[in-house]
Amino acid sequence: MRFYFDYISPYAYIAWRQLPAIAARHRQAIEPVPVVFGALLGAHGTKGPAEVAAKRRYILKDVYRKARRAGLPFALPPSHPFNPLLALRASSLVLPGDAQHRLIGALFAAVWETGEGIEAPGAVSRIATSVGLDGEAIERAASEPDAKVRLRAQTDEALAAGVFGVPTVVVDGELYWGVDALELLDTFLGQREPVPAELVARWETLPASATRRM
Amino acid sequence: MRFYFDYISPYAYIAWRQLPAIAARHRQAIEPVPVVFGALLGAHGTKGPAEVAAKRRYILKDVYRKARRAGLPFALPPSHPFNPLLALRASSLVLPGDAQHRLIGALFAAVWETGEGIEAPGAVSRIATSVGLDGEAIERAASEPDAKVRLRAQTDEALAAGVFGVPTVVVDGELYWGVDALELLDTFLGQREPVPAELVARWETLPASATRRM
Repeated sequence: MRFYFDYISPYAYIAWRQLPAIAARHRQAIEPVPVVFGALLGAHGTKGPAEVAAKRRYILKDVYRKARRAGLPFALPPSHPFNPLLALRASSLVLPGDAQHRLIGALFAAVWETGEGIEAPGAVSRIATSVGLDGEAIERAASEPDAKVRLRAQTDEALAAGVFGVPTVVVDGELYWGVDALELLDTFLGQREPVPAELVARWETLPASATRRM
Repeated sequence: MRFYFDYISPYAYIAWRQLPAIAARHRQAIEPVPVVFGALLGAHGTKGPAEVAAKRRYILKDVYRKARRAGLPFALPPSHPFNPLLALRASSLVLPGDAQHRLIGALFAAVWETGEGIEAPGAVSRIATSVGLDGEAIERAASEPDAKVRLRAQTDEALAAGVFGVPTVVVDGELYWGVDALELLDTFLGQREPVPAELVARWETLPASATRRM
């Protein structure tokens, strides 16, 4: 299953930590797909939760409660929003074995677990080194045009798959968005019961009898 | 606890059905507060989930899965979005005993359980009558200027409380937004553990080191 994420989202951090147990239960591999959340918002013409004052106030509490429920540590990064591009590009590199998973785990931890952040010069290199990788080589490769192209392509792929937020897990064409959907994903992987196609089709063609002026 | 809702939201329907068990467990009363979801969106400058094509496709599946998980019937209304104003105004009237709760339950059922809808002429009156109320009197009172003023005031009150979506439960100044937050609400009512004030304060003053062009 594909896990679309951006380090900017604390929900993505929680999901990253909760997904392995679900994946193991159903013998699924996790394919991490870094994407630029801001670009998803731009493409859909929507605002991120941290871009609406009342929602921004709310999500901190919601994330704290969900991290606690999951038994996960939670800290704030030095700034938010921050620029996640170098970290996302580094996380998109083709690395041997479980190196990509280790790097992603360490970057998520640096943002939302220890709160040290990933944006300072040399941070990505240092964090990569801390999990046994060649940090300097990774930061160099992440700065190449290739890495930028790859991240953009992944974001485009997410949009094509219907992804509008992070984290989103896609399996067999089905989207599961957010920490709260992981339980539903778990159920789906066990029972493989799709939403009735006729209900989906009716929703798609349901007329509007009122519209909101925007 | 105050339950802010609009019939337009299928999540509000699910929450309305799940809330009584939580309220009973913690000896809390449910005070329903009808609000105009569209006005909340307008005030916050946001789009509703059904106003973003990819999200609209997603939420039908998400709602279906959550209704199933909760063991609730689920059907689509004749149109969506529809005009919920008369139903919201009727639901805001001061009625004796449990009449308001009965009326709200019947209106939610008409939208999301049987799919008959609440927008056709006479629908609100007929639905109110079906739960033993004087439907004609209710529809008449709901059409009075007073009822319009009350619904607007409730929506303003929601905004002042920080509400940005429906359903939202507010208890002791704490917001719980959406079906997924009900479990967290249940935990809060049992343990009364607030989110640490210093974490909230730090989030409120956290600098941004990147911004998105919008």
